[in-house]
Amino acid sequence: MSIKLDRQFLKGFLEESEVQAIAADLEKAQHDLTNKTGTGSDFLGWTDLPSSIDDGLIDELTELGKDVRLNSDCIVSIGIGGSYLGIKATLEYLRDSSHTPVYYAGHNMSVDYTYELLENLKDKNFTVIVISKSGTTTEPALAFRLIKEVMKEKYSEEEMQKRIICVTDGAKGALRKTADAKGYRTYVIPDDVGGRFSVLTPVGLVPLACAGVDIKALVDGARAGEKEYSSTDLNSNTCLQYAASRYLLYKKGKVIEMQASFYDNMQYVSEWWKQLFGESEGKDGKGIFPASTVLSTDLHSMGQLMQDGMRNIFETFIEVETSNHELIIPEEADNLDDFNCVAGRDLDWVNTQAHKATAEAHFEGGVPNMTITLGKADAFHLGQLYYFFERAVGITGYLLGVNPFNQPGVEAYKKKMFALLGK
Amino acid sequence: MSIKLDRQFLKGFLEESEVQAIAADLEKAQHDLTNKTGTGSDFLGWTDLPSSIDDGLIDELTELGKDVRLNSDCIVSIGIGGSYLGIKATLEYLRDSSHTPVYYAGHNMSVDYTYELLENLKDKNFTVIVISKSGTTTEPALAFRLIKEVMKEKYSEEEMQKRIICVTDGAKGALRKTADAKGYRTYVIPDDVGGRFSVLTPVGLVPLACAGVDIKALVDGARAGEKEYSSTDLNSNTCLQYAASRYLLYKKGKVIEMQASFYDNMQYVSEWWKQLFGESEGKDGKGIFPASTVLSTDLHSMGQLMQDGMRNIFETFIEVETSNHELIIPEEADNLDDFNCVAGRDLDWVNTQAHKATAEAHFEGGVPNMTITLGKADAFHLGQLYYFFERAVGITGYLLGVNPFNQPGVEAYKKKMFALLGK
Repeated sequence: MSIKLDRQFLKGFLEESEVQAIAADLEKAQHDLTNKTGTGSDFLGWTDLPSSIDDGLIDELTELGKDVRLNSDCIVSIGIGGSYLGIKATLEYLRDSSHTPVYYAGHNMSVDYTYELLENLKDKNFTVIVISKSGTTTEPALAFRLIKEVMKEKYSEEEMQKRIICVTDGAKGALRKTADAKGYRTYVIPDDVGGRFSVLTPVGLVPLACAGVDIKALVDGARAGEKEYSSTDLNSNTCLQYAASRYLLYKKGKVIEMQASFYDNMQYVSEWWKQLFGESEGKDGKGIFPASTVLSTDLHSMGQLMQDGMRNIFETFIEVETSNHELIIPEEADNLDDFNCVAGRDLDWVNTQAHKATAEAHFEGGVPNMTITLGKADAFHLGQLYYFFERAVGITGYLLGVNPFNQPGVEAYKKKMFALLGK
Repeated sequence: MSIKLDRQFLKGFLEESEVQAIAADLEKAQHDLTNKTGTGSDFLGWTDLPSSIDDGLIDELTELGKDVRLNSDCIVSIGIGGSYLGIKATLEYLRDSSHTPVYYAGHNMSVDYTYELLENLKDKNFTVIVISKSGTTTEPALAFRLIKEVMKEKYSEEEMQKRIICVTDGAKGALRKTADAKGYRTYVIPDDVGGRFSVLTPVGLVPLACAGVDIKALVDGARAGEKEYSSTDLNSNTCLQYAASRYLLYKKGKVIEMQASFYDNMQYVSEWWKQLFGESEGKDGKGIFPASTVLSTDLHSMGQLMQDGMRNIFETFIEVETSNHELIIPEEADNLDDFNCVAGRDLDWVNTQAHKATAEAHFEGGVPNMTITLGKADAFHLGQLYYFFERAVGITGYLLGVNPFNQPGVEAYKKKMFALLGK
């Protein structure tokens, strides 16, 4: 049930003694995270979030979800950044046809996308979940305005009250004011958890529960992760090993980390990971550049460069031990494609061989790589993985000497944009 | 109608005189491409492909598409790499609800994805297009085996003959043999066009025509591109300017190119671009690392790193001048979100201000950037863009001193995998 980490293909690039040599730094990083004594400690609410979540809230949100699904064909989730990626990543990863469809809005300003969404909503019964700490982030604020126009054509003010749920600040901000004035239901975003760490707060849990996700399992996985990955034991804690290895590879000039999974449903988990890692580490002129591929698809696009290009890359594979389905490859009498050698095998077995071959070939080509293995593609293991990555980036952020919990750089374009908008 | 290139935000990072200084190299690269005299000249069929396409073929494929749509709820396109990305990029970019749905297979070995696809197909009438030069690439070969099993349950052998179209080698290979033996219709992949350059060959044109795309417009756009971007006039040819600029930025340590569009439908055009550029340049220990973002979505994930992280990045924005729809932002009496300043404006106008603000902020933060502007989100302009990028990577490949038209590195993992598969 634990996440496994295979580091055999770091050999020659990074020795175990080098990891052991920074054991004291790793221990300090863990203590500073657990005791909330490090840089950016105002935003360390995520470290013990899983164990602090009240089971009563989980039950309440599960009931809320049942109510919402009774009167809604679909859900519109309005949010951007951390108020979008965790939700999208979870739903895409689980890809469960019994979930109520979730449409996203306010995560871009593509007019054609938004136009088509609004047209589509005109014929549907839907519930809107608006997720914004301030209520003044441009994309979700404008999307909320546009969607309310569609709702006004369909629903009474009373009905709109039932169909709008706000996830926002507990006391202040435009969305809080709107919700209080209009009587919309609200759920609170804690002050000490930043957007990119918020998937297990109401930011993620409210829309996921409404879609029908087993949020109890997701939280339980994160609880297991919290217990395991808060440990300071370098020999057993795979999260510490991963964090230390990537930090040391970076110091040796491996400035790009390629996260590579062999499952198409992992695509948005990688997008979530890219925000978490890029926004936490990419500052003060430092930070690993996070990139992602879905294999074997992208072996036929980025594979050449991975094998033979600039040697400034390391790779982290993600593997899932058990698939949800089985697909046996049929035998063919004429065997023109010469694949009867795998007839009778499960397709997943072939996929696993592709992973083994790729890890070894890239290693021999000069790309050090690790493999993270999850037990199963379900909510529990995803919750565990979320915590694994959150903890890991807290550790490498401290090793890098940055504040992993702020994002001062995102204000630069906003200031210029507000000036152009006349705001 | 031409593609525009704005290079104002290269100032201080790259001067015009540096571009002019390599004018002779650029001219030689263009000549070697046009006259097919450079490295990898066996695979330069793409350079004059648009102007060589017979209008009779376009008419034939357009008719084929009409026939296919008469008896098919959907199309299954089996292929990987260049036999997948161009099709997906075009359909996602155009996102036209009048197109017949296309499902992809053989582009991965995710068992859960493939299982669900096969289940879904059981209730549908469909046509299968198998795209593979050799017919022995693992992913499409196994997918074709599995899909034929579903077809056998539904269709007679005669009906299967009508519903399977092969795009493959003209003379040799397993798929050619299969097609000839079974009497499947075939279209030929030219010998002198590599997979990543094949979107305008039958590889792309057959499935796109079957889906209902205006392939005449796509090809006409590429023809306009061929005419314009084959020129050796550095002062007017934006493709030459783009190629020269990115090569020189790379020589100055900007080893990552981030392609950033402000439209969600551009996501797979960027994926297509990543294959084209990564596979052409990433060899001999060289090559720019191609990455992509969709903004403003990813300003809320990768924005921090772009603004303040390691300064080893340059950025190429893609802008589209005219949206297909209009969405006016409504005024709100209470103005709690403070966005009445943009009430009455089109959402696309706000999106454009976000682009302007981002380009300037990233430039000031140390990220040199360029903007490519297309006229409209339609097939013509996409065809033009495809040629623009194909030509550009040919030029930078020659400047880098690599063979941009081979991919020796993709064999490494395949050899190991075939050994593991017992092949």
